Order: sequence, then structure tokens, then C-alpha cells
Amino acid sequence: MTKLKWGMIGGGEGSQIGPAHRLGALADGRFEFVAGALDHRPEVGRAYAEKLGIVGDRAYGDWTEMLAGEKAREDRIDLVTVATPNATHFEITKAFLEAGFNVLCEKPMAMTVEEGEEIVRVAEKSGKICAVNYCYSAYPMVRQARAMVRNGEIGSVRLVVTNFSHGHHGGSTDADNPRIRWRYDPKVAGVSGQFADCGIHALHMASFICDDEVASLSADFVSTVAGRELEDDAMVNFRMSGGTVGRLWTSSVAIGRQHGFDIQIFGETGGLRWASEQPNQLIYTPAGQRTQIIEKGEGGLHEDARRLSRVSIAHPEGFPLAVANIYCELADAIAGHSRDGLPGAPAGARSIAAVHAAVASADADGAWIDARPPMYR
Amino acid sequence: MTKLKWGMIGGGEGSQIGPAHRLGALADGRFEFVAGALDHRPEVGRAYAEKLGIVGDRAYGDWTEMLAGEKAREDRIDLVTVATPNATHFEITKAFLEAGFNVLCEKPMAMTVEEGEEIVRVAEKSGKICAVNYCYSAYPMVRQARAMVRNGEIGSVRLVVTNFSHGHHGGSTDADNPRIRWRYDPKVAGVSGQFADCGIHALHMASFICDDEVASLSADFVSTVAGRELEDDAMVNFRMSGGTVGRLWTSSVAIGRQHGFDIQIFGETGGLRWASEQPNQLIYTPAGQRTQIIEKGEGGLHEDARRLSRVSIAHPEGFPLAVANIYCELADAIAGHSRDGLPGAPAGARSIAAVHAAVASADADGAWIDARPPMYR
Amino acid sequence: MTKLKWGMIGGGEGSQIGPAHRLGALADGRFEFVAGALDHRPEVGRAYAEKLGIVGDRAYGDWTEMLAGEKAREDRIDLVTVATPNATHFEITKAFLEAGFNVLCEKPMAMTVEEGEEIVRVAEKSGKICAVNYCYSAYPMVRQARAMVRNGEIGSVRLVVTNFSHGHHGGSTDADNPRIRWRYDPKVAGVSGQFADCGIHALHMASFICDDEVASLSADFVSTVAGRELEDDAMVNFRMSGGTVGRLWTSSVAIGRQHGFDIQIFGETGGLRWASEQPNQLIYTPAGQRTQIIEKGEGGLHEDARRLSRVSIAHPEGFPLAVANIYCELADAIAGHSRDGLPGAPAGARSIAAVHAAVASADADGAWIDARPPMYR
Amino acid sequence: MTKLKWGMIGGGEGSQIGPAHRLGALADGRFEFVAGALDHRPEVGRAYAEKLGIVGDRAYGDWTEMLAGEKAREDRIDLVTVATPNATHFEITKAFLEAGFNVLCEKPMAMTVEEGEEIVRVAEKSGKICAVNYCYSAYPMVRQARAMVRNGEIGSVRLVVTNFSHGHHGGSTDADNPRIRWRYDPKVAGVSGQFADCGIHALHMASFICDDEVASLSADFVSTVAGRELEDDAMVNFRMSGGTVGRLWTSSVAIGRQHGFDIQIFGETGGLRWASEQPNQLIYTPAGQRTQIIEKGEGGLHEDARRLSRVSIAHPEGFPLAVANIYCELADAIAGHSRDGLPGAPAGARSIAAVHAAVASADADGAWIDARPPMYR
Repeated sequence: MTKLKWGMIGGGEGSQIGPAHRLGALADGRFEFVAGALDHRPEVGRAYAEKLGIVGDRAYGDWTEMLAGEKAREDRIDLVTVATPNATHFEITKAFLEAGFNVLCEKPMAMTVEEGEEIVRVAEKSGKICAVNYCYSAYPMVRQARAMVRNGEIGSVRLVVTNFSHGHHGGSTDADNPRIRWRYDPKVAGVSGQFADCGIHALHMASFICDDEVASLSADFVSTVAGRELEDDAMVNFRMSGGTVGRLWTSSVAIGRQHGFDIQIFGETGGLRWASEQPNQLIYTPAGQRTQIIEKGEGGLHEDARRLSRVSIAHPEGFPLAVANIYCELADAIAGHSRDGLPGAPAGARSIAAVHAAVASADADGAWIDARPPMYR
Repeated sequence: MTKLKWGMIGGGEGSQIGPAHRLGALADGRFEFVAGALDHRPEVGRAYAEKLGIVGDRAYGDWTEMLAGEKAREDRIDLVTVATPNATHFEITKAFLEAGFNVLCEKPMAMTVEEGEEIVRVAEKSGKICAVNYCYSAYPMVRQARAMVRNGEIGSVRLVVTNFSHGHHGGSTDADNPRIRWRYDPKVAGVSGQFADCGIHALHMASFICDDEVASLSADFVSTVAGRELEDDAMVNFRMSGGTVGRLWTSSVAIGRQHGFDIQIFGETGGLRWASEQPNQLIYTPAGQRTQIIEKGEGGLHEDARRLSRVSIAHPEGFPLAVANIYCELADAIAGHSRDGLPGAPAGARSIAAVHAAVASADADGAWIDARPPMYR
Repeated sequence: MTKLKWGMIGGGEGSQIGPAHRLGALADGRFEFVAGALDHRPEVGRAYAEKLGIVGDRAYGDWTEMLAGEKAREDRIDLVTVATPNATHFEITKAFLEAGFNVLCEKPMAMTVEEGEEIVRVAEKSGKICAVNYCYSAYPMVRQARAMVRNGEIGSVRLVVTNFSHGHHGGSTDADNPRIRWRYDPKVAGVSGQFADCGIHALHMASFICDDEVASLSADFVSTVAGRELEDDAMVNFRMSGGTVGRLWTSSVAIGRQHGFDIQIFGETGGLRWASEQPNQLIYTPAGQRTQIIEKGEGGLHEDARRLSRVSIAHPEGFPLAVANIYCELADAIAGHSRDGLPGAPAGARSIAAVHAAVASADADGAWIDARPPMYR
Repeated sequence: MTKLKWGMIGGGEGSQIGPAHRLGALADGRFEFVAGALDHRPEVGRAYAEKLGIVGDRAYGDWTEMLAGEKAREDRIDLVTVATPNATHFEITKAFLEAGFNVLCEKPMAMTVEEGEEIVRVAEKSGKICAVNYCYSAYPMVRQARAMVRNGEIGSVRLVVTNFSHGHHGGSTDADNPRIRWRYDPKVAGVSGQFADCGIHALHMASFICDDEVASLSADFVSTVAGRELEDDAMVNFRMSGGTVGRLWTSSVAIGRQHGFDIQIFGETGGLRWASEQPNQLIYTPAGQRTQIIEKGEGGLHEDARRLSRVSIAHPEGFPLAVANIYCELADAIAGHSRDGLPGAPAGARSIAAVHAAVASADADGAWIDARPPMYR
């Protein structure tokens, strides 16, 4: 088993996302970290890459240098992770795909709907893998939920209800805290604050588990903290193509919620519930019967739930290993195994379109808006 | 301590609401049950009243007979509970108020906004107590939450999020079950199904705890089960007069939710959470500090929370005693104590107006609508 | 339905147990409160009884007066509750049984093993009901557990594990608090502190659910707070007659535990778990299958669980209504229905013997001791 | 930052412990896996090592070959993990320590008290690190609990109560299942079944958090499943050197418990509770105050809790990363940082002595026995 070669752009010293990706890539021993352009300051990035064990000539000063360097090598990287500031995702992802690299891009994949569609086209043409890091979808029990829905175990899905609400931006000094303030500044964050940051994970998961796409939506955005231009609390009602009704609440001022990401899926013959703070259980109620607790690691789980778990029942596996699961799926996909659970460019493009639709709806007092990228209408 | 005299209209044999009111009135020994018109079939109602220990001449055949009979007595009842079918609440409540009786009316207090306003005027003119049975508001820890909000313990309230979602009408045979079907039939249930039935408790509680009124709302109603004319799932966004943002989800097809009534209140300096399935705890997070569990019965609770609890800390008190708390408050109010926690005719009228506003909004694709009765605009 | 006549001895103004019994007796409308000797100070007791609505000649000064008075009446009480200080239970209970009254005695039924046996004989001879208020056993879901065990739904019971641990006597000033101190003073409390006070409820419940008797035990008693003569923390291992292994931990210094009374029953084909702080659910795991949540009020519960619940699924019923359930069972039993769930004099006698056995074992470094009253060996 | 060189003995293909150690060692990028003797079948072990990326001459056929090979190299491994069958731990650990290697040994460190003491002496003489994989102690919130106790935040510890109870050996076919049967066969498992397998983790954690040692104990062992020679359920009462009272229940027939490892620590001024199924929270109750939820990742945690966590608040970290924390501590210790949280040879020796003491006590009807290795008496 030769290890795959992996490189990263962004994720420099002090970032939170860098260590998460490195742990994700390395934990299961399937990748080795061989190349990086880790910082927007070339010298800093090179030094940090070398500190992390990358040999000098693959410790690059910026992504263009890395693209050129890797293209020129026989032993080029098998996968590049793009973990740079949001506004740069499009350009870098596109360039690496066009050069024939497999890419894992942090969300959002791009900033505009047009860019999102462009990546879809480029990825398709390249024949390479373009994945977007909606990593919550890689928790084993989220995969179990999706497999149960696909398998008809709750019947046709009537309703999906999801929240992603925390209170970490609701404190009295948070309005002025520079590490928080930018998230609500359209010049930095783009068109949306909390919905684009957290809500979009919930919207993606709704699509992922229901195996359906968001067709239209109506949004109510508010800024509850004085001085914020972008929303810190949002409610989005939506409809999926197959008719499922959706409800999504997201907030960053829900003081006391730590990481309130949960999802409930209600079908004609049963209901499912999952919460990110207790990710190793899936709550299942067949209509007219008692509620059951499905445990990660129990016998008889669906294939994806079994494959993406490492330790036995009731030994919890947490967030970093959900990220690692994305890398496991990528390694498998690179090896030629079909891995339809990997969120790809179409999912990335749909998410961007949904954010823009929600902003437009909120601006129009909650009018219902088509949430699909034009290419999928 | 002479017991107060209590009578009931409706709540005959086999009803669920009758025993709940009798337990509520009798549990604390402050009322005696002396008069009743318990069934729409006069003979059945008289027989059942006698079976329950009511002396013959106060076992009435119908409410008009009871009104006449009680008016004529020296030892007339101190309180009448109206627990008849919804469409009759207005007429009976009005008549008893006008005759000088204190009334506890089941919700809804009336069917139309105009009727609701009429009861407000009649009650005010009568000088008598007119209470509506929003009994969840009488749980001790709901009172604690309200007192904390009033006391400024979470600062100005930014956001209130509440759900009342169960799955008991989502089964495969529920569409045809006559005990369920009528709830979604406008000829019997009126203009709204699940929102008027359950959601309105959540909306009332939001007002109750925030000590503020719903000013406007936007609703998304859906019928997820084929053949239902009224909604079995609804999302209502609202704004309170003081600017608080509200979000309310209610459903009867959320299979696996047993009695998912919960509320979260987020202010500038803290958050509160309460759930009806664990009603004896209130979860409190001061901004920037750890989450705390406030227990019914602990030292230092606010007055209402202390007064409306009977047994020591961590001995749970449940739903029937929340109803009993309404009767305790009524007994106190009849004795002349100020009990501003009793939901009165204005709350009843506002609830009705909110239901009608939600229906109108849902019919208009979620347009924002004034939710107040005209008299309060 | 004529109400049964009920009287109480003890439970005067300011006691916690008095209101609990009055609510228990009155809540379901099956008893009327007609006689009482409520305080050890005759005048205080009479005045309080009258305040509670008892007519003068049945507001007694003490229990002997009440015994004489009630014996002499045609309309004598159907049931007397003995809620006096522990040391007086034996004498009063015995006297009322011998005079032909049904008795509900607070626990402990007596102070010595010999007294316990004496009550068993007197009760048997009298043909009257002698119940002991092990009220936790009357929660609907405890009854469900017992019925499931009897019905073989978890197979032969291998193991029962139960705790009753709180921290309300563990504070820094509790050692000197006179309301707490007496509990650890053998001159007032008898031979045991926390085990006799709380642990015995857990031991009774183990017997109750397993439908078996404690045969022998080994105890480890400690006093963790300086100055206490009796134990404030105890571990008791036991064996039941049928071979079931038991483990019981009880503590009053477990700071943070509010009312940590829970029980787990493990059989050959399944396990059950119940906790007094969430009494409306019973957790059930059939061997090799998923854990299920059994809800009070769901369809298909066993008869006792159904009969002793008042409101629909997921509307919690709490501690006061568990006491009320004891009174419902008493009313039924007085009416001639078999109610084998009522803890009777044999259960009372066995509990006393177990307390004495535990004390003896603890004194002998945990030696195994026969826990049965001699009459049952 | 050069990576440390790591090797493993045992943990071959199909084992659960092998992947856990590899993930633990690799996840944080501080070790590289360079040597291994992974299987008792030399060829199989070599082939698997090469499959995992180990270069041929360090893919050893057995541990003696590995010891010789590594000793002879300039670039010898910095750490060896011993994950072989229990009976071989002593010999291998001793040999590697004597040859000057740092060792992480799976528990138990040895089989007899004498062997345990021997390892202590050898480790001390070698000046090398000898750690035992009591990995639960490396959860961040367990470290927080320990730091709080050390810091006096709950005062002098009166009581520690811990359970490690599951039901995975309680099924109807488990008695005959060869993967389970050996655990209760003294010829394979040694003197103890469930207590040595799981209970010892709980006993170690009690010592670890309380920063104290088990001095004496009294045990009740039972085999609830027919045909088992060793205990599948045990209760152990103990006393620590500083006077703390301990209670430990462990079971493998508690059907429905998945991984019921939890611990409660009660001191004079507060209580702490932690459960392995929700490892990212620590429940804290200061005496006389409300219960608080301490979250992994919150501000102000003690150093160990902060250092051993990777992702922000409420992103759960699970069991595999607790193992990884042991490796982080080892990397730090090898680098010369003091890491007193690493369970060392003395802890290993004490655990073995406690197992033997418990067996002796159980054989003597629960007599109290000195639980310390002779060298520590």
C-alpha cells in the first residue's frame, strides 16, 4: 500500500483549518504530506512547510509556484487541498483542476453563482475529482441516515428540519472583536454572514441525507447585534425538487448553544434525528413503534456507516475523524472506487446559488426564490 | 379556609380534558366540585355529574340551565370552567362573564378576531376574572424564565425560538382516523389545524416569557399528508412589539417527537432553554460563562417559581400540576391577590388574531401581516 | 361514586409530607378528607384540621382520641394515613389495624425487626389493608418494568443495580444544620442514616420490580462528614432468593446529584433502565437488538402502567402523582379489587430487617448476613 | 520538527488495537511508523508491515528480531508500542527497557505482582519512559477533572464512584462465542475476567483523577452466565491512601449499556461527573450552587485539558484521539517535557496488585485486602 501524495494550499501556522486537514489526511495513514504553499507570506509558508517535514523544493512560496512545481514532477501530488481565504477558492481550484489535479476545496467553492457553475464545467471536463469539504456529511451516522432514506426505511420524505445555531458571536464584546467582526462585513465575507458560514452546512446536509436538491426557498435574515451589516440569525424555509418541505434555522447569537447542528428527517413511515454534539447515535422512530437508538459500530449498519468508523460500538469518534473520513473517501476515489458520498462541484455550486437566493429572498421580505444555479434549472 | 365552589361545562365521561381539569381543581384542596353540565346529552351529563358526587340539583342538563340555576343561588359557584367544543367557547364564556361569574376558558377563547375582542370588552366591563387555559405557562420553571427576563438577567431579548412538534398524526392510518381527521377539516376545526392546536401554545409562551406581544408574522403552512385541507406543519417567523425576533415551528407529522414543546430565549447577556418533556429544569447560560442547570425547588428561585411548586428539588412535577397551578392562581386571584401570570382575555384575543394572521400570511406566500387584534393596534 | 372517607395522623402545618399525602388522596377525587390528628400539639392540630375544612368533632387532638372517635362513628374513615415521626409508626399502625381500619403507613413501618413482624401478624389477623408508602413503586413506568419482568420479557433476572444518591447533606454547613443533623444521630434516627432514609426505597424497588426478596447482603457504610455517627454513604451488595445479584449505592454527599434514584435490571434476554428524574420513560434493550424508549402513555403498555397514568403520551406525570397512584390503588383495594402492587406489611417488615442486617454487616467489615425477618427464613 | 521514529509489536491485520495505535501515533504528525513485528506468524507480520509502508529490513518476524535489529541501528526507533497478547507484555517490555528503548505497553503491563514490580525497577534503572496505555485518562476533560481536584476546586475528596459496565457479553450465544469465551477462561485470561479487562480502567482513573492510590479493597465477584469460571460482574469497594472512599461496579452482562464508563468525584466543596460516551463535557457542581457544564475547548481550562484538544468548543473529539493524546504526551516526554499525566510503570504495577487483591477478596467473601504491591506498602 503506497501512500498517496498530498499537498495543501493555505492552512498556515496558527490557523485552525490547517491542523484539521493535516490530521484528516494523516490519521489513517493513506496520504503523506509532501507539498505545500501554506501562507500568503512566501517565506513564512516555506519555513512552516519545512518545519512540518516537507522537503525544501516542495515547500512553495505561493500557489502558482506550487502549481508549476508539481506539474513539472513525475511524482506529482495525488490530491491538493485548498484552504485559503474564501475569495481565492475559485481561482486556485480551477487552475489545479485544469492542470489535472484532484482537488479538495474548503467551502465555499466560489463566491458567485457563475463561478460555481464554471467549476462544475471545469471539473467535468478535467475528469478529476473536485470535492468540497462538507465534512459533517462524513460522520458515520449521517451516512447511515442517508442510506436508510435511500433504502426507503422512512418512506417518502415529507419534511426535513435542521438547525445550526451557536452563541459564540453573541457576547457583549463580540461586535467589536476583530476575529468576529469581519464575518458580518460584506466587504470581507461576501453577501451573507451566518447563513453562508454555518447554515449552508445544514442545507447541504438536508440535500445529502434526503438525496434531493433544494429547489426554492424563502428567507428571513436579521442582524441582532448593533452595527452588523450581514445577518447573524436566519430562518430559511425551502422546498426540495421531490416536494420535501425544509426548515432551517441558523444563528450565531443563540447564547448557550455550543454547536447546535442537528437535523431531523420525517418521512411517511418513520423519523430520524441526529445531532452533531452526539454524533455517534442516530435516533430512529418507525411510525407507530418505539423510538430506537442506532449506535455507531452496531451490527447491521449500512455499508458507508460501517466503512467510515474505526473503533467498536460506543467508543465515540468525533469531528476530526469526520474530516478524516473525507480523506478516506478521497483515497478510495483516487484508487478508482465509486464514492458517491463525496460532496462534489455540483453540491458546491448549488450551495452558492442557495446563499445568493436566500439573500435575495431576505431582501424581498421572504419572497420565494428559485435556489438552483441556472445550469440546473 | 373554606373551599371555593367550582363548576365545569363540558369534560364529560371519556374526554381527556375533563379529568385534567378536575385533577387541576381538586389537587391542592382549594376548590370543591359542586356544579356541572358535563355532556351535550343532558341525561348523560346529569348522570355523570352525580356519579362524580355532584348533588342532583346542580347536575345540570346544559349550560343555559346551569347559568340560570347558579345565578339563582346564594352559594353560587366561584369559578366555572368552559371545556366544551371550541365553537361554543365564545357564547358560554360571554354569558357567564356577563352574569358575574369568574371563568376559566379552554383555548381558543373564541373563533374569530371580533369575538375575541368582544370577550375582552365583556370581561373588562364585568370586573370578573376571565382566564384562558394556556397551562404550560404555569410550569414553575417557565415562571422562573419569565421572572429572569423581567429582571433583566439575560438583557434585552434579541431572539425567541420555539417548537411544538409531535408525530402523532403522521402514521399511515392517521389520515383516515376519525379522531384525527377532524383536526384538518376546516368545517370542524376552523381556519387552522396544527398551528391553532399546538403552535399557539408556543406563540403564547413566547409572549409570556418575553413579556411582550407578537406584532407581525410571516407563515409557511403545509399539509404533508394527502387529503388534509388544513396545515399539519407550519413555520411562523414573527416580530414582537419590542423588536424581538421570533421563530416558531410546529408539526404533527414529526414522527418520533412525542411532545416536542420547547422554547429558547436569547438576550444580550444570556440565554435560557426549557423543554416540556423535562419541565423541572431550566437551562441558563450567562454570556461568556458556563451553562447552568436551574432546578425546580432550588434555593433563590423567583417568587412565582417557588409558589407554584409543591415538592422538594428534583422530585418532578408534571403536566397535571401545571394545570393545577392555573387553579391555584385562580384561587389566589379570587381571594384578591394579584396574579399577573394568569393568561387573560387579552392573551386569548391576541392568540386568535395571530392564528388568523398566520392563515392570511400562508395564503399570501408568507407575506408579513399585522398579528394584533385591531383593538390593540 | 361516593367518595371514600380519609383521615391522617401527623402531617401538620409546615411538614412536607402532609401536603404530599393530601394531594395524593384528593387529586383523583376518590377520597374526601374528613378526620385528622395533625400535630403533636393538640390545639395546633385541631386548628389546622379545621383550617383544612375538617368539621370540628373530627379535628382530633391526638391519635388516641382519633382512634376512639372514629371507632365510635357509623361513618368512620375508610383509610387512615400515618405520617408521624418514625418511632411512633408501629404503635399507631398496630392500634388502627386492631380496631379494623385500613392503614397507609409512612416508611419505616416500625423500628425493630420484631415490631415489623408484629405488624405483619396483626395486619393478617385483622383482614384489613396495611400499606407502606414506598411510593416510587407506583410510577407507571416502574409498574411497566415489573410487568415486563414478570412476563419474562428480559428472561431470568441476573442482576439488579440501583442507586439513590443526592448531595443535599454534603455542604459545608450541613454538618451543623439542625434540619439535617438529626438524620445522622442514632438517638433520633435509629440504627441507620442514609441507607434507612433513601437506600431502602431502592432496595424495595429492586424487590418490587424483580418480584423477588432480598435474602442476604453485605454492606459498606461510611460517614464522610466529620461528626456524623451514622452513615451518609453506603454500598450494599445483596442476593435475592431466586439468585439475582444486587448492587445498591446510596449517598447524601454526592454533591451535584439532585435526586439520583435510578434502577437497572439485567436479565438473560434483555435489560431495563429507569431514573426517577425522568420517570416517564423506561429504557429497554432486548439482547442483541437496539435500545428502545418506552413512553408512558404509549399503546400496548401493561395494565398497571396504563391504569396509573392520567394524561397522554409525553405529558409528564411526576412525584406527587406517584403518591396519588398509591391512593388510587388503595381506593381500588378498598373497593375489593386485587391490587398486588401495593407494598404491604410483609414488604415493610422485610425492609426493616434489611436495614438491621446492613448495619450488622457494616459493623462486621462487610460480612454476608441473612437479610430476612426470622418469620420469612 | 523531525518526526520521531516509532515501531509496534503486535497489532497485526484484523486486530482492533493495531489500527487504534497507528491512528494514535500518526494523527498528529509527530511520529513516523518505521518498524514492526506485527504478527506471531513471522511471514504474515513482515508482509503486513511492508503493506503498511515499512521498509523491508525493519519489517521484522518477531520481537526478538526487532529488538536485535533496532539496537544495531543508528536511527533506532524512539518508541516501541507493545500490543501483543497479555501474557507476553512483561517479557517484551522488560527487554526493550533494558535495551534502552522508550516503551508504551498495552495494559496489563504484566500478569503477576512480582512481574509488575520488576518492570518498575527496570524502568527506573533504565531511565527510559515506560508508559501503560490507560488511554481514557488522556481525554481532555478527564485531565480537567484531575487538574480541578489538584487545584482544590472540590476540596478534599470524600468519595469516588465509577462504573465500567457494558452488555456485550450478555447475549444468549455469548457463552459459546469463542471471541468472548476466552475472557472468562483462567487458562487464557488469568485470574480475573471483567474486572481485569474493564474495571481496571475505572480503578486507574479513580487514582488518576484523585491523584491518590488505592490502599485496600473488598470485592464481590459473580459469574452470571453459566459455564464461566471468571467473573462477568464485579463490585469493588476501596479506600485510597488519603482516606477517600471508592465504589466501582463493572459488568459485561449489563444488556443495553454500550460503554458505560463513567466516574463521579465528590469532595467537600463540590462534585464532578464525567462519562465516556459524552467525553467532551465535564459536569461540575460547586457545593450550594448550580450544576455547570464545562465544555472541552472553552476558555480558562487547565493546561492539560487545553493542550490535549485539537478543535474548537463543541466539536467532539473521541476515543481514537484520546489514544493520540497518549502519543502526544509521549512525544513531549521524549522531547524532555515533563508529562506527569502519562500512566507509568508504577501505575501499571498498582493495577496488577489491585486485580490480585480483588480476586483474593472475592474468594474470601469480600474480606478487606491490602491492594498495594509490596514495594509500595
